[in-house]
Amino acid sequence: MYFDSHIHSEGLGFSELKTMSSAGIKKAITLAFYPVKPLYPQTFVDMFRKLMEFETKRCKEAGIDVYPAVGIHPRCIPPKYEFVVNYMDENDWFAFGEIGLETASREEVEVLKSQLRVAKQNDVPCIIHTPRSNKREITMKTLEILKELSFPGELTVIDHVNFDSLEVVLKADYWIGLTVQPGKLKPEDAARIVDTHGTERFMLNSDAGFSDSDYTAVAKAARLIEGRLGSEADKVVYRNAKKFLRI
Amino acid sequence: MYFDSHIHSEGLGFSELKTMSSAGIKKAITLAFYPVKPLYPQTFVDMFRKLMEFETKRCKEAGIDVYPAVGIHPRCIPPKYEFVVNYMDENDWFAFGEIGLETASREEVEVLKSQLRVAKQNDVPCIIHTPRSNKREITMKTLEILKELSFPGELTVIDHVNFDSLEVVLKADYWIGLTVQPGKLKPEDAARIVDTHGTERFMLNSDAGFSDSDYTAVAKAARLIEGRLGSEADKVVYRNAKKFLRI
Repeated sequence: MYFDSHIHSEGLGFSELKTMSSAGIKKAITLAFYPVKPLYPQTFVDMFRKLMEFETKRCKEAGIDVYPAVGIHPRCIPPKYEFVVNYMDENDWFAFGEIGLETASREEVEVLKSQLRVAKQNDVPCIIHTPRSNKREITMKTLEILKELSFPGELTVIDHVNFDSLEVVLKADYWIGLTVQPGKLKPEDAARIVDTHGTERFMLNSDAGFSDSDYTAVAKAARLIEGRLGSEADKVVYRNAKKFLRI
Repeated sequence: MYFDSHIHSEGLGFSELKTMSSAGIKKAITLAFYPVKPLYPQTFVDMFRKLMEFETKRCKEAGIDVYPAVGIHPRCIPPKYEFVVNYMDENDWFAFGEIGLETASREEVEVLKSQLRVAKQNDVPCIIHTPRSNKREITMKTLEILKELSFPGELTVIDHVNFDSLEVVLKADYWIGLTVQPGKLKPEDAARIVDTHGTERFMLNSDAGFSDSDYTAVAKAARLIEGRLGSEADKVVYRNAKKFLRI
């Protein structure tokens, strides 16, 4: 059984979800993202309801238990974003995500901090996006913000960590998300990182969703890591994500 | 080249869209639908923007030209629906859809009429949903409303027509949508209807999208019809939908 800790199930078709399940991916976190910048904060509330009520059911029918994460991605901050953060504060959730910084603009920092404050207050695990561009620099800025807010390590995954950012993230005390996908890490890259740094802090994901992606990438990487580590691989391919989500 | 006159591309994954394109489906109308009943009318505005700006681009990359239809489906009428209808009135669109009646409640009739009035005023083609339950009765009620508003025949597809409703729809003067899908019409059913009633008024669709569906159903039915009618099949499998949309 594999756990894909970061997908956007809304962008995946039913037959693709079935293929993921057949490949062994039985659990996944499905994260909030809106592929155009919304004009209205209300759109997020209905999107979160769609994730919680519809996507969970659709994915279950296809053979995957999905756990929605809700939040405002830095690339789709709406006007009056406080409306969304209040809704996040007033309800119960598995996790917040993806949240984080893309360019580290003042607005992005403000929106991230306001979501982290609600998460800390309500004890909600957070999946923290890091961008493609200026990966190391923006990751360092993100780590500073988490430190400034004394944000709990066990509630945090720093996601899309790659060879540019691995060193700085390893120094901090958070979960680490390895995104296996053409253009990001190869299955062999993920296996090599786990070989070198152990199984305690890593979880695997595909970021599969709205674009052309290899939605079984986690299964490929998982089989490779299992081949090298045997049952010790379970942590990376399943148990760490489960523990992080507290399910 | 085939034209699928009714899909919900938002529910289809990239690899599924590529498979449709490889099967010959090069154009499609992608229709508005929200899989939970939205709490806010603003959600529709962002959904329409997603269809127009993002889905067109995503489907194009997968090899399909999609033409979005926008509107309020009778199963997802939001509070203050006038906000949505005003937005539909203030902008240019390829088509409205899917709109129509599910149970023919007073609210559904009001919402359908208000959208048809805007469509007539602005000369916008409309794709009219008919339900699974009470198909014939609700279809007759829908035809009455169209007649009452003197709604132009060339701007109307009555969709999901089956053997229960075919006779009443044939008497009126509208385009007829045949939905080929397990549980709806089989490819052989569609071929038989076209054999009997000619190629002038029919177009094929799959209604593929959010649920487990045969997304290449139109290609299967189209090949069957081509085998029987040769180039005359073009109308049903491609040209009628193109003419209806005026593209």
